[in-house]
Amino acid sequence: MGYDVGMIKHPETLKWIGDAETGYLRLIEQTLLPNELTYLDCKDVQTVWDAIKRLTVRGAPAIGIAAAYGMVIGAQKGKFEEAGDHLATSRPTAVNLFWAIDRMRGLGTADIEVLLAEAKQIHAEDAAMCGKIGEYGAGLIKDGMGVLTHCNAGALATGGIGTATGPMYTAHAKGVKFMVYADETRPLNQGSRLTTWELMAGGVDVTLICDDMAGHAMKEGKIGLVITGADRIAANGDAANKIGTYGVAIMAKYHGIPFYVAAPSSTFDFELAEGSLIPIEQRDAGEVINGFGKATAPADAVVYNPAFDVTPAELISGLITEKGIISPVNTENIEKMLKL
Amino acid sequence: MGYDVGMIKHPETLKWIGDAETGYLRLIEQTLLPNELTYLDCKDVQTVWDAIKRLTVRGAPAIGIAAAYGMVIGAQKGKFEEAGDHLATSRPTAVNLFWAIDRMRGLGTADIEVLLAEAKQIHAEDAAMCGKIGEYGAGLIKDGMGVLTHCNAGALATGGIGTATGPMYTAHAKGVKFMVYADETRPLNQGSRLTTWELMAGGVDVTLICDDMAGHAMKEGKIGLVITGADRIAANGDAANKIGTYGVAIMAKYHGIPFYVAAPSSTFDFELAEGSLIPIEQRDAGEVINGFGKATAPADAVVYNPAFDVTPAELISGLITEKGIISPVNTENIEKMLKL
Repeated sequence: MGYDVGMIKHPETLKWIGDAETGYLRLIEQTLLPNELTYLDCKDVQTVWDAIKRLTVRGAPAIGIAAAYGMVIGAQKGKFEEAGDHLATSRPTAVNLFWAIDRMRGLGTADIEVLLAEAKQIHAEDAAMCGKIGEYGAGLIKDGMGVLTHCNAGALATGGIGTATGPMYTAHAKGVKFMVYADETRPLNQGSRLTTWELMAGGVDVTLICDDMAGHAMKEGKIGLVITGADRIAANGDAANKIGTYGVAIMAKYHGIPFYVAAPSSTFDFELAEGSLIPIEQRDAGEVINGFGKATAPADAVVYNPAFDVTPAELISGLITEKGIISPVNTENIEKMLKL
Repeated sequence: MGYDVGMIKHPETLKWIGDAETGYLRLIEQTLLPNELTYLDCKDVQTVWDAIKRLTVRGAPAIGIAAAYGMVIGAQKGKFEEAGDHLATSRPTAVNLFWAIDRMRGLGTADIEVLLAEAKQIHAEDAAMCGKIGEYGAGLIKDGMGVLTHCNAGALATGGIGTATGPMYTAHAKGVKFMVYADETRPLNQGSRLTTWELMAGGVDVTLICDDMAGHAMKEGKIGLVITGADRIAANGDAANKIGTYGVAIMAKYHGIPFYVAAPSSTFDFELAEGSLIPIEQRDAGEVINGFGKATAPADAVVYNPAFDVTPAELISGLITEKGIISPVNTENIEKMLKL
């Protein structure tokens, strides 16, 4: 691959420590970023499940990798199948989760050496995919441009340099001068806590904005390009991603700004004809009411807290995959690029 | 007026305590809501200035009323003119601030009895305007409707039942069953801290969402109407309001949802032909990074933090004023309604 995660100075999002028999999965505890850089060592399946559920590890590709390692941990205890069943219940929207579980199962063995090799292979392939997405997408970023992103589809969400951030790290490495605008991404602030943190760590210029500032920034001409990640993409190109992505896409359309989604082919779910079929996870009210250390709303407030939304293909200028950029976005072009 | 602030159970946003000679201004300390309901007693001009600057009192109409009372306090110390000059520097965007200061100056006296009577008159007129806006706007709200609002243009922002909330309280009093969706409104969370709090206190059904959930809620058909306030409206109807309003207007347009701005005639600035001439206040990075008790971004993150944006008239279905609803929104219709 063109550029590896080594170009980013911060530590690895996921790492297998030790051998197959007694080893374990070490994760950055992302819920504590940017205030503390600590790690969570997962030595049983439930800890991996909790880590996915509580967003210690998040981002569709990283969730898939974590689940694969989690199944190795299950196999260590003779509970490979149960591990897969259980991990599949941790988060409903990210298709990579099911993809990784199915791939591990497809080996037809509970041999932990074989399983660990496969999990590491999934991890390495993800890093390679990020590198390819970075290469294909970097050409979209021009000198002097402002590039808006929402949530974190970064190194912290993958096994490599990120999907949405892949083109950014790659363009930066090539010497392009540009400014990333990172949406804060309420309620869990992945943009401010994670994207801002990792881009700063990687030496990429970044300006943090609140989600409700994106429209104004576009109007002022600060944004020339939007790149986000995706959690699941339907066969027609409709893309589920972190809540708020859809609004950004509408605002980009209104301002005539290209809106791209960066995602590996494992994010595509060809069994879903269109985005309306993608299940949307609803999360707890407490994330909105009590997210910042003190209550920012009445404790008994009614809250609507969908974790994802779906951006229709017609609002997406192109899909940046490890096989190339798909544009215009439609079922035929997606099949042509990904099913060859 | 049709409905007064008495229909809301929570205490008064602004209140003059005592007589003209020795009295003072009592404000709800809105920066501590919803966790604590405390008051700030303003006995000198600097305390009023700070209260406006720090957002103890906020919302264009309430700022105007606070400034009027602040000039009475200045006059108590023989510094009426200086008080006006100083208070005018507290916040640049709200035209009501300058309007109230000019009106107090227009009396041509430093007699504190006369000045206090005028400040109380400004306060009472604002309450009456809210009541009228409520009456005119209530008809837009139908049974079963979802009504989205952004920021707080509520009782807490005015001397009455609010501008954007005026139609909501009034429709509620008339027995209409509807659901308000309150945008959280980052970075200062006026929607979650203030609008959600005051609507709950007033018995109006309200669901809190994050700013980046508005587009998805619209797509799901939850929103049938948007009503926001405004801080300044240009002669052509372009409206400056809390940052994020512009994005809501774009998303409403995309979904074919009517978007209304509720504001008294004192919010109109006929000296500005269009919205691009409205100065936009930039605020501190700390509001975004450290707003609520713990850091949600790296301490040294670069932040862009505009406090307002401008929604162009073509995205506004109508302007709800105390004299009636102006629609379609253009210079001619505004003049016809307000300059008669």
